[in-house]
Parts: sequence; structure tokens; C-alpha cells
Amino acid sequence: MELPDIEERMDALHWGAFRLMQNPRWFCFSLDSVLLAWFAKLRPGDRVLDLGCGNGVLPLLLLVREPRLSVTGLELMEPLADLARRNMEMNRVEAKIICGDIKEGEQLFPKASFDLVLTNPPYEKADQGRLPKEPLKAAARAELYCDLSDVLKTAATLLKPLGRFAMVHRARRMAEIIAGAKAVGLEPKTLRLIAPRREEPSNLLFLEAVKGGKMGMELPPPLIVYEEDGRYTPEMEAIFRGPEGGTEWKR
Amino acid sequence: MELPDIEERMDALHWGAFRLMQNPRWFCFSLDSVLLAWFAKLRPGDRVLDLGCGNGVLPLLLLVREPRLSVTGLELMEPLADLARRNMEMNRVEAKIICGDIKEGEQLFPKASFDLVLTNPPYEKADQGRLPKEPLKAAARAELYCDLSDVLKTAATLLKPLGRFAMVHRARRMAEIIAGAKAVGLEPKTLRLIAPRREEPSNLLFLEAVKGGKMGMELPPPLIVYEEDGRYTPEMEAIFRGPEGGTEWKR
Repeated sequence: MELPDIEERMDALHWGAFRLMQNPRWFCFSLDSVLLAWFAKLRPGDRVLDLGCGNGVLPLLLLVREPRLSVTGLELMEPLADLARRNMEMNRVEAKIICGDIKEGEQLFPKASFDLVLTNPPYEKADQGRLPKEPLKAAARAELYCDLSDVLKTAATLLKPLGRFAMVHRARRMAEIIAGAKAVGLEPKTLRLIAPRREEPSNLLFLEAVKGGKMGMELPPPLIVYEEDGRYTPEMEAIFRGPEGGTEWKR
Repeated sequence: MELPDIEERMDALHWGAFRLMQNPRWFCFSLDSVLLAWFAKLRPGDRVLDLGCGNGVLPLLLLVREPRLSVTGLELMEPLADLARRNMEMNRVEAKIICGDIKEGEQLFPKASFDLVLTNPPYEKADQGRLPKEPLKAAARAELYCDLSDVLKTAATLLKPLGRFAMVHRARRMAEIIAGAKAVGLEPKTLRLIAPRREEPSNLLFLEAVKGGKMGMELPPPLIVYEEDGRYTPEMEAIFRGPEGGTEWKR
């Protein structure tokens, strides 16, 4: 694959504590990573794996919320894994970045070795819609190199019993996500819908599932992103303020 | 089973057009039936089956919304089936009431013969929590005579290709419902969560699935039942006013 010239830019991350290099021609992190980092339950001492970590934004955000984590990021694309490593170094953070394939997770890590597996995977089916011409962007957008069932299978294999799986994904794929998670023993426990405005359908979801968990789900009120007048809602503003100033929905 | 004395009472149904006899010692219809009758898509000429019709409230409500339906209600308990028949007669409605077992649906009706199958099934697992002493109430509350997978299996068998399945159920059983529906070929298409108040978790859900439908879900905003001050929300008031006065969420 031919790679473009590197034109990195330096961005201040939400939640203030970190700086992030990213190359806008490849991949830039989105709001969805911020929501995933915000909604995931974290416990001090957790061994955490981010499947498809891109430039490392999720490991950085997680470590802002809870520094006492052992975080690993897995990224297929060498240039992104390299950028993620440099982002960790620049921020003096000890997250480990591994360049490798989600589908080979079982060979890369010991089985049942993580307390928490997170992912903000490609949202679109490989055969649906137009893809960006830039190959790294296309890989982040669509299921070209792995699909939902690969992600779920690897997560289920690598999680300890009662380990947590956390994901942000398209709301319209909810049925596939829930049935697929149950099929590999990840029992859906908390589903939070995310809607642009109060009167609009949800377009995203946050799911937390527990490996071998008991059946029974919690359905908190949807996260609403914008007020009618286009301002962010108070809950979104709290999320942008981050762990110091934020209030949380019973997290 | 020993039956209590019949102490029927006459209730005016929501939506005005009908009267309903019900015996409060056996079973009284709930708000959930009204929501199911309100959210289900109805098309003139539809052949409709209500699995577990109780005293016949759902057939009556459906026929208020759309008189050009051919409606059948299936009810296991003879006293309830009898009451449902009398409710149809009293209201001069031609819905057919069959006394029989949901698990034997395939013997009772031709396969692939309905356009729409609805159900407001027992919500609780057979082994969870205390049951009402009255046997007919217990059967309506808990999965004593049939469970979720029986209901889904019968619905899938009796629906025509691309026929619709509509159900109200407990929100906390959502994962089981969605995975179970997909497993029998009922593809979840619309999920509407129902919450008592805006800031509270959802406790009910309305699901519409399509037999052999394409993947892809729509997630409208939750239905909120009460305002903070305890009044019904405008949407709930519209539902109580019924088909004449109501506005609907893109139904």
C-alpha cells in the first residue's frame, strides 16, 4: 500500500492533560473515542486492551481518567502504530502499542488475560457505500480487514471470566451487535443510545457486555448531543470538561 | 385449576369506541397493551394474530385503529378465552378467539398465514420472584406455560415472509429478545424504549421485527410516560386520546 507523505499535526486532546500527533490524511480520532473513554467503567489495576487503537487516542484518554491501568493498544497499520507509540512517548505514558491483526489476537496475547477490552471498530460493512481513497482512512471506516464478529470473537477470547467489553458503534447495527456478543458469551449489560437531538432517532450506541455475565440489561436515558438551538447539552459539556469537572450518569 | 367466582366488571376502554368486561381477580389489561396497539404498524387487509390475547383488549384496540383487519386471538385459559369471545360479541366485532396453546401454534394455524403477529407475553422467568396466588394472574405474569423462545418460534412459523412481529416486553430482557428474534429469522427493525421519566432508565420496550427482513435498525427517541411533576407527557396524552386525536412518532 502506498502511503502519503507524513503531515502530522499536533492537537490538544480533550480533557487537557495530553497532546496528540495525528495525520489528518490518515485518520483523526472522533467524538466517538471520547464517548467510549468516558462511558467505560475503569477499575484501578485493570489490564486493558484497545482493539484497533489508531493513533492511540483511547489509551491516552483512559489513562487521564485512571492512571492506575495497564493499557495495551493493538493496531494493524504500521504507520498508525508507529504514530501511537510516539504519542505515548511524547506524553510519557507507558501504554504498550502492538502492531498486529485483531483476527490473530489469540496468538498475540494469552487467553483470558484482560479485565477490559474496548473498541471503536470500523462501522460500515465492506460492501456498503463509497470508501475514502486513502487506504488508512478506508480501513478505519469499513470492515475491510476485520468485521464485527472478528472483533467480538477476539474480545471474548482475551477477556478474563467476568471481564468487561466496551464498544461504540452505529445504532442501526444494534441487533447484529447484541446477537453477536451473546453468541460468543459476552452478555450485554448496559446499552446507552446516543442521539444528535432529543427528538431524533439515535445514530450511535455504547454497549458494555460482561464475559459470562448474567442476563439482564440496564438502559439509561440516551445521551443527547445537541440542544435544539445547536449548543451542546449540559451532559456533553461535562464530557468535554472531562474527569475533573464532569458529572456522570451513574457511571 | 380452581377458578374464582366470576366478578366481572365493565370498563370503558381507552380510545372510547369499546366496552370491555374484565375480571380483576383474573387479569386486567395494562397500559402495555395500549402501547402495543398504538405502536404496531397496521395495513388494511392484514391478517393479524394476537398470541395470548387475555380478555381480548388488544384485538379490540387494533380494530379501533384499523377496522379493515382480520384479527385472531389465541388464549390458553378457557375462562379468559370465553370472556374475550363475549367481549367481541358485546362490541359486535368479528375477531376470532381460539382457545389453545402458543406452543402448538403450528398445529392450530397454517404456516406462513399471518401478516402481523403481536404479543404482550408474560414478562418474568418462571423461577424469578413471587407469583400471584391466582393462577390466571400468575400465568399472565410469568413464563409458566410458555416462554420467550416459544413465543418467538410460533410467531416466526406463522408469519408470512416479510410479515411483521410486534411485542412489548421488559427492557432488561432486551438482549435475550433481540438475539432470540434473530435466531428464528425475525430481524429486529424498530426498537422503541419506554421510560417512566426522562432521566430514568427504560423499563419497557416495543420491538418490531420483520420475518426475513434486511439487517438495520431504527431507534426512535424513547417514549417518556410522565413529566417530572407526575402529569402524563403530551405524547402519552395523545396515545390515551387514541387514533382520532393523536399525533404519532413517524408511525
